[in-house]
Amino acid sequence: MERKLHPTPAGYNHTIAGRTVLASPVCDFDMVVFGGTGDLALRKLLPALYYRHAEGQLPDAGRIIGVARQQIDRAGYLQMVEQACRTHIAPEDFDDHQWQGFARRFQYVHLDAGEAESYRPLVDCFEGVPEHRTRVFYLATSPLLFGVICHNLHGVGLVNAMARVVLEKPLGHDLASSCEINDRVGEVFEEYQVYRIDHYLGKETVQNLLVLRFGNAMFEPLWRSGLIDHVQITVAEQVGVEGRGDYYDRAGALRDMVQNHLLQLLCLVAMEPPTSLTPDAVRDEKLKVLRALRPLAGESVVTHTVRGQYRAGAINGQPVPGYLEEPGIAPARGTETFVALKLFIDNWRWGGVPFYLRTGKRLQSRTSEIVLNFKPVPHSIFQEGSGGLADNRLVLRLQPEEGVKLDMMAKAPGPGMQLKPVHLNLDFAQTFQGRLPGAYERLLIDVIVGRPTLFMRRDELEAAWAWVEPIMAAWTARSDSPKSYNAGTWGPTSSIALVERDGFTWHEEG
Amino acid sequence: MERKLHPTPAGYNHTIAGRTVLASPVCDFDMVVFGGTGDLALRKLLPALYYRHAEGQLPDAGRIIGVARQQIDRAGYLQMVEQACRTHIAPEDFDDHQWQGFARRFQYVHLDAGEAESYRPLVDCFEGVPEHRTRVFYLATSPLLFGVICHNLHGVGLVNAMARVVLEKPLGHDLASSCEINDRVGEVFEEYQVYRIDHYLGKETVQNLLVLRFGNAMFEPLWRSGLIDHVQITVAEQVGVEGRGDYYDRAGALRDMVQNHLLQLLCLVAMEPPTSLTPDAVRDEKLKVLRALRPLAGESVVTHTVRGQYRAGAINGQPVPGYLEEPGIAPARGTETFVALKLFIDNWRWGGVPFYLRTGKRLQSRTSEIVLNFKPVPHSIFQEGSGGLADNRLVLRLQPEEGVKLDMMAKAPGPGMQLKPVHLNLDFAQTFQGRLPGAYERLLIDVIVGRPTLFMRRDELEAAWAWVEPIMAAWTARSDSPKSYNAGTWGPTSSIALVERDGFTWHEEG
Repeated sequence: MERKLHPTPAGYNHTIAGRTVLASPVCDFDMVVFGGTGDLALRKLLPALYYRHAEGQLPDAGRIIGVARQQIDRAGYLQMVEQACRTHIAPEDFDDHQWQGFARRFQYVHLDAGEAESYRPLVDCFEGVPEHRTRVFYLATSPLLFGVICHNLHGVGLVNAMARVVLEKPLGHDLASSCEINDRVGEVFEEYQVYRIDHYLGKETVQNLLVLRFGNAMFEPLWRSGLIDHVQITVAEQVGVEGRGDYYDRAGALRDMVQNHLLQLLCLVAMEPPTSLTPDAVRDEKLKVLRALRPLAGESVVTHTVRGQYRAGAINGQPVPGYLEEPGIAPARGTETFVALKLFIDNWRWGGVPFYLRTGKRLQSRTSEIVLNFKPVPHSIFQEGSGGLADNRLVLRLQPEEGVKLDMMAKAPGPGMQLKPVHLNLDFAQTFQGRLPGAYERLLIDVIVGRPTLFMRRDELEAAWAWVEPIMAAWTARSDSPKSYNAGTWGPTSSIALVERDGFTWHEEG
Repeated sequence: MERKLHPTPAGYNHTIAGRTVLASPVCDFDMVVFGGTGDLALRKLLPALYYRHAEGQLPDAGRIIGVARQQIDRAGYLQMVEQACRTHIAPEDFDDHQWQGFARRFQYVHLDAGEAESYRPLVDCFEGVPEHRTRVFYLATSPLLFGVICHNLHGVGLVNAMARVVLEKPLGHDLASSCEINDRVGEVFEEYQVYRIDHYLGKETVQNLLVLRFGNAMFEPLWRSGLIDHVQITVAEQVGVEGRGDYYDRAGALRDMVQNHLLQLLCLVAMEPPTSLTPDAVRDEKLKVLRALRPLAGESVVTHTVRGQYRAGAINGQPVPGYLEEPGIAPARGTETFVALKLFIDNWRWGGVPFYLRTGKRLQSRTSEIVLNFKPVPHSIFQEGSGGLADNRLVLRLQPEEGVKLDMMAKAPGPGMQLKPVHLNLDFAQTFQGRLPGAYERLLIDVIVGRPTLFMRRDELEAAWAWVEPIMAAWTARSDSPKSYNAGTWGPTSSIALVERDGFTWHEEG
């Protein structure tokens, strides 16, 4: 295989040789995965690292140190990892020879995150490791442990200037608890060392949104009030609580999805052009969007938000239980599994343009997309009976297949002047062929090379909490119970009413 | 076959039943084709009418009357027409049963266009025909005959309020001769009855240009100076003079192609949004473009125009003779078979945006297209080594396959931020399947139903001549001889230099 190295920052650029996407190797690193035997590590992080290894992006000296409470040895851990990789990597991508090489990177340390003295074996792992070598502490654990792990790492002297810590959501359950975690972490790590991960931002389409917006002169002039009519962001899941009932029931869709994923997508769609893709240039612009969100509180929560909770129904023809029948659920909490919101961004670019957000579990299909609906033409020059003009629409699909679609009008061929909607499509998988790298692959590499552009800065996180909190407060104050919807539908009818009231329809393919 | 009739103007609308495009029938009509045994009638007009017949658009009472000097009878004429249809209609579209029905429409009259008394049999054909019935006189003859035919038709009383006359190009060889023809025709026909045909305007893509521009809110804000960098219009032919050497050698590419086809395409691309598609609304806007063309005269002709003439070369690997070896050519005339122009439209929308036009015979491929090149992004946020940003480009293809292509930048999938040009494509034949109706089919129907939107009004024609004449005058004054180019290339190198000097390149696919 041909490989071309770029002189630009190590590990970040890659080239396209024929159709194969290769990435240039990153610098040497040690990645310590707390919660190394947990679900996230085994299902997502380690398979993602396997792919980066197999595509030649990890240097020979790159180490992965699994850390967990289980008293197993390296061989036992490798068995677990191999099993996970074989399960979560496509069979055609898993290769025994590559696995052998990948396995050589691994060490395993069992420790009790809360006990400083148990960190000794981990410290030993770093004996003789040069100070300038990148070290990543990935905290794939409960957020309750974030503070103590950071302090213990510091206590045993493992936190140096090259150290980075990756924090998985949920980062608290409200502004105060989020601040508490960030304060504790911040006592040990400088903000530039903290990587708050939101894997939605690692998706190709999200990256592509940046390229579409800022790599094409033709979109930017259209991307504004006056030309855009309204924007929809949908993140729909078919799955239920998936054994995480206890966690989910305390969180709900607003905390679990809106406060992070949906608001982050909103920021990328709505932000002003940053001066560069450097981390703070992008995050400054995102922050400005969050701070420009018109507050939803009191009465406007009633009119601008919809909460839903699924009852039994069917997904793809298979019966599924209702939310209250799932294990770990306390019906009295009245947790929402669906949220729809209508919101405004009070700035010049977006003044008066409604943004509709919705997300939920057990919905009809697994669909994530951002839809920009253009205003109608100001005046139709076509006569009645020409078939009518559908408004232009730009659809950025994140799931199930990543792609871009532009809905426009064309003339139907024939001797008359009959108009017909057509779709210009860019299907990434088709266009580029080959496998699309997963979100975690990109984000893990970003952590290793020290590029926090796609990670949330503390002020962003807190601005998001500050906006979301009054909604939660209003719901609690009114002791609103969520509206029921059947599993396998698009959520409660009031979600449909939320947009139809304004004369719009949720975009739903096929 | 299902057929749906629209209440809107007869014959103009059609519906799409499944994938088959049906057109609702037009009103009763008589179409008299002067030059009925000529090349244009047999190759283009009558096959076009066959298709309209076969698709059910012609009413049973619609008649076609071939007129020519040949002393043949109806059977003889029908033989000629059948032979032509079998040659010029795709075998899968030609059907004996349909042919029988089509043939029943025909009559044949032999007359001498210059002799009024010979029109008697034609007058007889109209005996008893109601006055309110549409009658079309299609003059597929030499323009030298246009005046006399019109006067003779008038003399024998065939020109009534329902009469229309269709004039084929060339309408004169300069402004004066064009005015003379129009004056003569205008003594008999009111301007609303005169249909000056330019078959380029009947092409699907040209129609579609109107729908793209005015049926999509997203294009109009971009369609202007400041966002569009420059525009290219190419009409490239592979054929040589095709036995028309004598005519062509007196005309040349500027008269034969630029004065009509290319300037008409330019008008449709550049005009302001008309208030409707009514004939005068559109033609008023086109006229404004022609009148806003910055004059090319004197010195600017040297710097802004390129004349070429092909010498022997090869087309698709087959050797072809040079222009001067073609029959009917007088080398001393120095006729151009290629023209490239750089021009400006002096109005607010297009101020400072160069338009490059080129057309020629014996070029590398048969390609007609309009290319709008967008300005570069005002500032790139992407780092060096990201692969660079190609400018956006909208390509409207007229030939060989009609379609629309939008060139834009997307992110190449992978862990880095590598940019890649992608193409959103709309191939009409693929998207809509089925046969695309030819330009003459549309235009003939437009004549029958009385819709002159796509035909040139006298003032347009004269504005075009008025702009073209000083170029011809400057060439003559300088006794410029055209630059040679090899058949099978893209014309003289000075055509390439014309755009490269401004930092651009002619758009050439594959």
